[in-house]
Amino acid sequence: MTVKEYIESNKERFLEELFDLIRIPSISSDSKHKQDMYRAAEYWKKTLIDAGADKAEVMETEGHPVTYGEKIIDPSLPTILVYAHMDVMPVDPVDLWDTDPFEPVIKDGKIWARGADDDKGQGFMHAKAFEYMVKTNTLPCNVKFMIEGEEEIGSPSLGKFCEENKQMLKADVILVSDTTMISPEVPAITTGLRGLAYWQVEVTGPNRDLHSGLFGGAVANPINELCILISKCTNDKNEITIPGFYDKVLVANNKERELLNKRPYNEDEYKKSIAVDQLQGEEGYTTIERTGIRPSFDVCGIWGGFSGEGAKTVLPSKAYAKLSCRLVPDQNHKEIAKLLEDYLIRIAPKSVKVKVEELHGGQAYVCPIDHPAYLAAEKALNDTIGTLPVPVRSGGSIPIIATFEEILGIKSLLMGFGLESDAIHSPNENFPLHNFYKGIETIPLFYKYFTEENVSRR
Amino acid sequence: MTVKEYIESNKERFLEELFDLIRIPSISSDSKHKQDMYRAAEYWKKTLIDAGADKAEVMETEGHPVTYGEKIIDPSLPTILVYAHMDVMPVDPVDLWDTDPFEPVIKDGKIWARGADDDKGQGFMHAKAFEYMVKTNTLPCNVKFMIEGEEEIGSPSLGKFCEENKQMLKADVILVSDTTMISPEVPAITTGLRGLAYWQVEVTGPNRDLHSGLFGGAVANPINELCILISKCTNDKNEITIPGFYDKVLVANNKERELLNKRPYNEDEYKKSIAVDQLQGEEGYTTIERTGIRPSFDVCGIWGGFSGEGAKTVLPSKAYAKLSCRLVPDQNHKEIAKLLEDYLIRIAPKSVKVKVEELHGGQAYVCPIDHPAYLAAEKALNDTIGTLPVPVRSGGSIPIIATFEEILGIKSLLMGFGLESDAIHSPNENFPLHNFYKGIETIPLFYKYFTEENVSRR
Repeated sequence: MTVKEYIESNKERFLEELFDLIRIPSISSDSKHKQDMYRAAEYWKKTLIDAGADKAEVMETEGHPVTYGEKIIDPSLPTILVYAHMDVMPVDPVDLWDTDPFEPVIKDGKIWARGADDDKGQGFMHAKAFEYMVKTNTLPCNVKFMIEGEEEIGSPSLGKFCEENKQMLKADVILVSDTTMISPEVPAITTGLRGLAYWQVEVTGPNRDLHSGLFGGAVANPINELCILISKCTNDKNEITIPGFYDKVLVANNKERELLNKRPYNEDEYKKSIAVDQLQGEEGYTTIERTGIRPSFDVCGIWGGFSGEGAKTVLPSKAYAKLSCRLVPDQNHKEIAKLLEDYLIRIAPKSVKVKVEELHGGQAYVCPIDHPAYLAAEKALNDTIGTLPVPVRSGGSIPIIATFEEILGIKSLLMGFGLESDAIHSPNENFPLHNFYKGIETIPLFYKYFTEENVSRR
Repeated sequence: MTVKEYIESNKERFLEELFDLIRIPSISSDSKHKQDMYRAAEYWKKTLIDAGADKAEVMETEGHPVTYGEKIIDPSLPTILVYAHMDVMPVDPVDLWDTDPFEPVIKDGKIWARGADDDKGQGFMHAKAFEYMVKTNTLPCNVKFMIEGEEEIGSPSLGKFCEENKQMLKADVILVSDTTMISPEVPAITTGLRGLAYWQVEVTGPNRDLHSGLFGGAVANPINELCILISKCTNDKNEITIPGFYDKVLVANNKERELLNKRPYNEDEYKKSIAVDQLQGEEGYTTIERTGIRPSFDVCGIWGGFSGEGAKTVLPSKAYAKLSCRLVPDQNHKEIAKLLEDYLIRIAPKSVKVKVEELHGGQAYVCPIDHPAYLAAEKALNDTIGTLPVPVRSGGSIPIIATFEEILGIKSLLMGFGLESDAIHSPNENFPLHNFYKGIETIPLFYKYFTEENVSRR
């Protein structure tokens, strides 16, 4: 029985099962839903057992539980570790939803619900593809599942969980479906993710708000000084001027840049979609490169002084900003955090006090396009969709992917079946049935080709 | 009967009368107190009539009323126009007051109440000095009183009132007591007030908040750009770099600078009082000059993006700032407003949209130290306090003073009897009885010397 036939004869049940998972409001950021996290974990355990796992269990972490399951058919064969997450984002503002976010409906060929794509829909494809391989006795390798419950809050407990379960999680690749395709006809493999460094900066001038008439001109204004500090982090070429910032950036060669730029991109449409007259970024790079292989420096927030209506004159005591850098391989977020802190404190005038606090950070990640997992995914997607996938360096960050490499020493292969229009994290999240079925259809081919690639390289 | 004797034999009554004025909660910014403004205006009318004015009336404006009174003894003699205000600031936070703000008490030789100094106490000195001169038949010139009710909200109606009553308000000088002395032993005459230009700037990047990972590096961030714009308004010497900004600044000569710097100033104490390690201002000028005769550029407020707890990554759509410049003679606030607007719009990259709105403005003011009113006040203060007054260029702005010069063509003489410790605008406002009586004692001498100076110059 082909996978297409298996899907055809089981699709009603697949959807019923997925819908029961979606109906559990597993919002990880909301402590009200703590019990729902356990319900979702138990549901995943049952799903894996029913699909044919040798064993599956709900494992405690310092936060929400992880469901782990596995089927080891032959220790000498390669092992694929499937990573997905059972938690979802909050649903506010709930009045913007056309339907109940936790009561999935099918309309216009799509599933509409919170988690329909991210990541219950995409995660469930793996359960059903696994079920197919077990039931038809075509599983070509060993498989492990790690389904976490804290992805939407930054996976705070998963690093430690990996540390403590290194042996259990041993695998040749981590397979993840939590990203998007270029379009329904053009698949994509996310080969890179940017890292992140994130700081809060506090600039203190006088010990209280002063009258800007009586003191203005003689006392440093912390907002003026904060703006000057921020302005000194970039130059006219939109390069970042923090000393040492680019030292470890891997310079992409021309071939790689050429390949990256094959990704469909229409500058006029891009500008129109965000309503800007002109793009702006590091000199010498395209938009795709600027968001994929080059780091960035963005102020995410700034505040200080008077922001009410009218014209209150004040020379404020304090000013604050949230600064962030997206990082690329091989920049280390801890080193970068220190570089910025040292730089700002060094260039600040003595007339103000500057405090820099690192709030968050994550390493960048890259999967080479000659990695066996990449080659296997490329073939599998070409078979089912009829087009070679485009390698994509995403500008965003999934810090846990870099953590997997750091702790477990395993590369991840990001083969996503979502679409930009799926509105993940937003009201009216949806997932086309077509994509759901394409995912189930493609995954067994990935298993097959990955096993072949691996065995042939031994 | 000398003025000292007159004060001695009438002080109980003076205080009772002042206290009745203070008991009227004439908070101009609070519409609940609209009727209290009329009560205060009527009280001033009665005060002027009782003191000996030929006439006094409560006159309507577009806002709160003005009390006008006059005594013309001889049209060929000089005329002094006394300006004061009957309105007071709000009393919040009221729980920080040791006594009821509208029930004056005398304690430690001071009157404690809202308006005790600003400006009921200082204004009332003029009524009582006038009464003395009338009752003792020593009034040497004509006198007019204009007591307004909107000073604490920026005198929005008084410009028009002056326009409409130019003939009535004709005078040789405007005499104002609404400023401070250096100390109880060292009088001061405020010879200059800085002007003000105040803007709100809005920088718009994309039409919505973007994911800083997906777009960061390719799309201009409005906060980054706002900071760069602000940083380009000053240079390393803390000079303002808006083209044309200094063109009309009157350069003070060495003699004037020397005189200004005679004002007592202790840098260590100044720094300690505001807890900064280092002062900062325009190169080549002292702190007194930087706040007195030189303009300044201060960001009074800034906001945009995420300011909550933690590390939300966002490339925001908009960023805002409230910018302000203190101006000096002969800078025109309307011209300066335009210069900044043009400059920011010209230097902003096309990747963002910049909107600059002038929110408020006022001209700077200066009274030359050889003006007959200055010389008269100098003599009068030397007579009563025993020390020559220090000419002070205040960094603050009293926009109505510049408006008087603009509309009525009359210079103002700012002879204040308050102290820095009077806590005007704050809880526990107070006014030393000593200063109250010194004011009453000094004012008739000013009348005398001003009349002599004027007559001798004819």
